[in-house]
Amino acid sequence: MKRLSILGSTGSVGRNVLRVADQFRERFSVTALTAGRNIELLAEQVMHFTPEVVVVLDEDLARQLKKMVTAERHLEILHGLDGYRAAAALNSADLVVSAMVGSAGLLPTIAAIEAGKTVALANKESLVMAGELVMDTARKKGVSIIPVDSEHSAIFQCLAGHRRQDLKQIILTASGGPLLDKSAEELDGITPEMALCHPTWKMGPKITIDSATLMNKGLEVIEAKWLFDVPLELIRVMIHPESVIHSMVVYQDGSVIAQLSSPDMRVPIAYALSYPERLPLELPLPDFVDIGSLTFREPDLEKFPCLALALEACRIGMTMPAVLSAANEAAVDAFLSHRIGLRRIGEVVEYVMAKHKPIPNPDLSDILSAADWARLTAGEGTRLPSPPTVYSLCASEPGNGGQV
Amino acid sequence: MKRLSILGSTGSVGRNVLRVADQFRERFSVTALTAGRNIELLAEQVMHFTPEVVVVLDEDLARQLKKMVTAERHLEILHGLDGYRAAAALNSADLVVSAMVGSAGLLPTIAAIEAGKTVALANKESLVMAGELVMDTARKKGVSIIPVDSEHSAIFQCLAGHRRQDLKQIILTASGGPLLDKSAEELDGITPEMALCHPTWKMGPKITIDSATLMNKGLEVIEAKWLFDVPLELIRVMIHPESVIHSMVVYQDGSVIAQLSSPDMRVPIAYALSYPERLPLELPLPDFVDIGSLTFREPDLEKFPCLALALEACRIGMTMPAVLSAANEAAVDAFLSHRIGLRRIGEVVEYVMAKHKPIPNPDLSDILSAADWARLTAGEGTRLPSPPTVYSLCASEPGNGGQV
Repeated sequence: MKRLSILGSTGSVGRNVLRVADQFRERFSVTALTAGRNIELLAEQVMHFTPEVVVVLDEDLARQLKKMVTAERHLEILHGLDGYRAAAALNSADLVVSAMVGSAGLLPTIAAIEAGKTVALANKESLVMAGELVMDTARKKGVSIIPVDSEHSAIFQCLAGHRRQDLKQIILTASGGPLLDKSAEELDGITPEMALCHPTWKMGPKITIDSATLMNKGLEVIEAKWLFDVPLELIRVMIHPESVIHSMVVYQDGSVIAQLSSPDMRVPIAYALSYPERLPLELPLPDFVDIGSLTFREPDLEKFPCLALALEACRIGMTMPAVLSAANEAAVDAFLSHRIGLRRIGEVVEYVMAKHKPIPNPDLSDILSAADWARLTAGEGTRLPSPPTVYSLCASEPGNGGQV
Repeated sequence: MKRLSILGSTGSVGRNVLRVADQFRERFSVTALTAGRNIELLAEQVMHFTPEVVVVLDEDLARQLKKMVTAERHLEILHGLDGYRAAAALNSADLVVSAMVGSAGLLPTIAAIEAGKTVALANKESLVMAGELVMDTARKKGVSIIPVDSEHSAIFQCLAGHRRQDLKQIILTASGGPLLDKSAEELDGITPEMALCHPTWKMGPKITIDSATLMNKGLEVIEAKWLFDVPLELIRVMIHPESVIHSMVVYQDGSVIAQLSSPDMRVPIAYALSYPERLPLELPLPDFVDIGSLTFREPDLEKFPCLALALEACRIGMTMPAVLSAANEAAVDAFLSHRIGLRRIGEVVEYVMAKHKPIPNPDLSDILSAADWARLTAGEGTRLPSPPTVYSLCASEPGNGGQV
């Protein structure tokens, strides 16, 4: 029986983790659940999975939750960062699923690693903001970090059984999101509601918008760089609208190993939960004859500058990826609340990056300060009528930045 | 330095093995070369690679070869089956490449295994005719058999690093050959010259015709069954005209691992020669954006009955696959020498299979006798104006026989 602590159980990944845990109750028990504000769903999950510990954002929510789950006697209800950290480091947890949204996932993920827990990592900001620090800590503690993202799970599966020194390139595929075929002008009129309709994946709002701008793919490049310890130059992004091939690894003999599946988050989630075993998920197999054809194209970095910005932040390194990530979070938030248009997201991120003086060899507090600064500066950027571009980070890189 | 004994060095696979060996002379030396009648090319290969032993089909050819390579002092020239067996079991060989064409490859392959040599297997008839016997001997001798066929190499690569008990299906891809889109009527007018133009792979005449009739894919299914020890029901054939995905393995969680490369025989050959390492072949990587799209469809068993016959022979087992293989060899020979039309190949094979009473638990001599009988009976079939179909082996299996 593997005991799971699920950080972010009410989000899209968290809910799918619980579906898998529920399907295989003889293999998994749930020892901790954490959420932000969605205490209605959390209360249901508590009643169903009977964890020992549950964590919410603040004391008031904790009090409300307590009333909703009175029948549960042995339940400890915690709140805030200390609560999330406690859930991440819980003695009774064998595997910590890090599935909180955005930069809030960083400190709990580090707490899990420091407590020596195997981490199933869905929170990409942990590696985008503090990849070097997180991976160093994992190495020191001998902790395995197993990716949950479909692309990183694919790469992880394509690396298994083959020699790392033979690796020549990682091809990170991207569906291209719901706006792939829109013209630059059409992008101006996109509302949050339109951008939230992803063609192949059902996910939370933040990652769906990041998919639409291709920022998500940029964050995934940074994540892959740290997770698999490969230089940026060996990572190539390729648009593959059918989302059947989830990524590929090219070896030096010209052989390419690819991982494919139906676009269902339970496939990579189950693999992370049960690795190295595979669970009989009873999902329909991808029907290649039915799919008919798999297509590929280069990403358009002019139309989707967020990808170029992410590659540039990765190249600069230091605190720049944390600034990129935090500025993007603030800008996406502004878009979702109708304060800015979709194309302004990239402009705001570029504005913040241009203003940032990256700090070399940052420690955790440098990273967190830089991210806080980036959020404030992004707020400033969203309020400007059209933020002045201090210098164009994209202009010098018209090609696929990470491509070899 | 790995010392290679190459059985069938003047064939398509043999020549590519030597190209790879030549490109990596610091890793490979050639200790034996064998051929049939092509002594001109063999003589060139001997001068270039200076093996210890060389083998040709008969004494007369051996004498002729001797005159052509007089400068080579320490060269032993052998001939016939004993010669091929000696080359296969040579003390100085570390790896035996079994790349003779057709059933002639069986006994030398067994000789290599009995001598405890690692075998890079390109001769599919060894496993089609005597799969159980060959694999049993390999297990007893602790010998590794590494596939050279691009499809089986792909499966081998897709199994590495994943648990065998999680395997759910093998998808063997087929280019569909040069006649994929011809109508049944058009197939009647196909000449050997037309059938020898394969759209994606450059190979020898026998295998090119087998590709055109899809018999090759049927033989590959039987080969895969023995090589990977999986029941026929778990092997599915899928037409994939671009020949980029060389095969796939489906696991029980719905995850599919695929191997892809440009259609160049050197990729699987080099992998077999250097496994588990990969050689820096300096081949162009498959350009997915350039390829544009990968497509898939079901094989048409009515138009290509040879595939259905092979699946049926595999299902029947015993001596039937050996009979299928030998009858097909004779029929392809008759087609290549303009004695029968292309569509008669399947008819002749079906005629021979219908006449055969399979022998249970066959030993090697049962298998060889059944094959000899099948060749004679196929000759009889090719001379009939239109061989009577004793019963229709295909009629009962309209679907993809190996499909689950």
